[in-house]
Amino acid sequence: MGIEVCYHCSVGDNPKRLSSVLKEALARSDIVITTGGLGPTVDDITIETISKVIKKKLIFKKKIYKKIMDHFDRRKIEMPPINRRQAYIPDGSKDLINPVGTAPGVISETNGKVLIALPGVPQEMKSMMADVIDYLKDRYPSKATIETRIIKVVGLPESATCEKVQDLLKTEGDVTVGIYPHTAWVDLKINAKARDKRAAGRKIDPIEKEITSRLGNFVFGTNDETLEGVVGELLTTAKLTISVAESCTGGLIADRLTNVAGSSKYFTMAYVAYSNQAKVSQLGVSKKTIERYGAVSSQVAIAMARGVKKIAKTDLALGVTGIAGPTGATRQKPIGLVYIALSSPQDEQWRRFNFTGDRLAIKLEASQAALDMVRWYLIERCKKKR
Amino acid sequence: MGIEVCYHCSVGDNPKRLSSVLKEALARSDIVITTGGLGPTVDDITIETISKVIKKKLIFKKKIYKKIMDHFDRRKIEMPPINRRQAYIPDGSKDLINPVGTAPGVISETNGKVLIALPGVPQEMKSMMADVIDYLKDRYPSKATIETRIIKVVGLPESATCEKVQDLLKTEGDVTVGIYPHTAWVDLKINAKARDKRAAGRKIDPIEKEITSRLGNFVFGTNDETLEGVVGELLTTAKLTISVAESCTGGLIADRLTNVAGSSKYFTMAYVAYSNQAKVSQLGVSKKTIERYGAVSSQVAIAMARGVKKIAKTDLALGVTGIAGPTGATRQKPIGLVYIALSSPQDEQWRRFNFTGDRLAIKLEASQAALDMVRWYLIERCKKKR
Repeated sequence: MGIEVCYHCSVGDNPKRLSSVLKEALARSDIVITTGGLGPTVDDITIETISKVIKKKLIFKKKIYKKIMDHFDRRKIEMPPINRRQAYIPDGSKDLINPVGTAPGVISETNGKVLIALPGVPQEMKSMMADVIDYLKDRYPSKATIETRIIKVVGLPESATCEKVQDLLKTEGDVTVGIYPHTAWVDLKINAKARDKRAAGRKIDPIEKEITSRLGNFVFGTNDETLEGVVGELLTTAKLTISVAESCTGGLIADRLTNVAGSSKYFTMAYVAYSNQAKVSQLGVSKKTIERYGAVSSQVAIAMARGVKKIAKTDLALGVTGIAGPTGATRQKPIGLVYIALSSPQDEQWRRFNFTGDRLAIKLEASQAALDMVRWYLIERCKKKR
Repeated sequence: MGIEVCYHCSVGDNPKRLSSVLKEALARSDIVITTGGLGPTVDDITIETISKVIKKKLIFKKKIYKKIMDHFDRRKIEMPPINRRQAYIPDGSKDLINPVGTAPGVISETNGKVLIALPGVPQEMKSMMADVIDYLKDRYPSKATIETRIIKVVGLPESATCEKVQDLLKTEGDVTVGIYPHTAWVDLKINAKARDKRAAGRKIDPIEKEITSRLGNFVFGTNDETLEGVVGELLTTAKLTISVAESCTGGLIADRLTNVAGSSKYFTMAYVAYSNQAKVSQLGVSKKTIERYGAVSSQVAIAMARGVKKIAKTDLALGVTGIAGPTGATRQKPIGLVYIALSSPQDEQWRRFNFTGDRLAIKLEASQAALDMVRWYLIERCKKKR
């Protein structure tokens, strides 16, 4: 919308500090948005504090009260008496309807500044954002816009990514390009300020093109695309199905695949075979293979993938085995060692990884690497088909 | 440590704004801790900006440089030239060793104030906190301490929880008690300021006791305990094993159970049976049951639990089936409808839930409710054994 977000500040449910932060924020910015503290309980003090800061009395609004009662009626629950508090807003303020909860949002104008109070529960806050945006567009009819595009990179560490695009990074000016590492991927973020969306796009597009041409298929998506979402689209396009046999990732790959709406089209089942016995009895991994190579080995990863593929009758299958820690490591097999196998109609491939970090980081990195193996396979396959 | 945390502020990688935020923070607080912006890339500007704000030149430190090179040597990777930047710190500052990455932490003193810069990658930042705490204890030998205890509640909504403990909530003074809702649980947080840990404990204990006596077994743990961790402990104590058959939760229950180190003691396997066919062929759910009651039904949840229990030969088993949305709903079976069954050596029980929120929220709420059913079962069982 062309409105620069300059500061973000957090403060506890403490009336004095909250009040001082609100005053400071109103002094240095034209628009101040708060989240949180709109609940029904006594430590929800945002509305009360706002009313004091902008010197407007709290007024009981019948219309809001009715909506709160309706919320409970729909769920066939009696309204707890404390929820009545949520029907009070500062005099002269506008309320925002909360379609998923009881706390209304509040927009107050004071000395030419705008103060917007939203609930802290993310889905309640998000449910009001369209109304907030409409309000701000109306209040500040601006000809400028700030557009953001995030280019998402997987399989290349931050420093390697940076070396390839270093000369494009920029922290100041109308167009900025930044690099942000995460546990299992790297974001490159392009911001452009321009008079409209299209003009901003014209500034962003050539930079995105340049980055993508340098990083090639290490770029897996843009903006809020997820690796599991991209893999899902590739599977859908290729009309292929997938199943998963997980050991050290413990269900995380299946969980991520099924976070995608419509994943039942290509994902049918997963096996979390945590014990060796489950690997043998359920996935048909031979006892001898485990004895000879150990449960954490390329041979077992391949046998797991082969096993689940046969049971699930899918086109593709992943097998993942490794040591997430903190225990279970040996001299030859350290924490973070993970084998990932992908079985396809054409062949079986496997890779060995040494991940770092704690148990949860290793699980996440392993799930990311596994999904990325599927992505590369589908990209290569698609090339060959052409 | 008796140091009150008053403000938290975020600002982009913009030299002017970062510099103004640092100056403001140093003006209003004795100690300022920053995280982020210590990486090797050009948009990592924290150290440079600090050096300007505190008016101390950046100095190249051989000792730090050697540690950065060692980091790459250990991983048998050649050091990228850009990482050399990370060996510069403001003159007169103290560096903090980073055991998991390349960026050192930096402690600078300026006009009687302390400025501490830590990396933004959580595990790197955490790896330095012990040194930071030692430094602050030494620099500010205080006789006061602030202790926090979080009481974690599951299965009771925020307003119901609040009604039971409303008179205990307190936002000001040496002891504060607050209530914080999350998607699938509620935290009650007690803070106490006192001259030492023990004195703070004496203030916290009676409040915790009172809350726990009012909420009973809806309290599942304290502080950083997780529901999966608590269930794991109960299973270990009871010497029972568990397996899981998941449909709508898609592997999330297994993922959470295996987030707990040592979970292989009681968790052996999980089945993510996303398709009806997988439910029939792998879990032995009868086709007729699915046809008669639908895949989302108590009957199928029970059959899933029964099926995986038989295959995995565990003492307990969960079966979960539901509609996570956004599609798949019918008039009788709305989005958020989830059936959870728990099969035990004694009996089979099931519950029906209507969760709200998006796909990910419903998955999380369902996984929480499933783990909580196991927890209640184990608590009841333990009572009977006594």
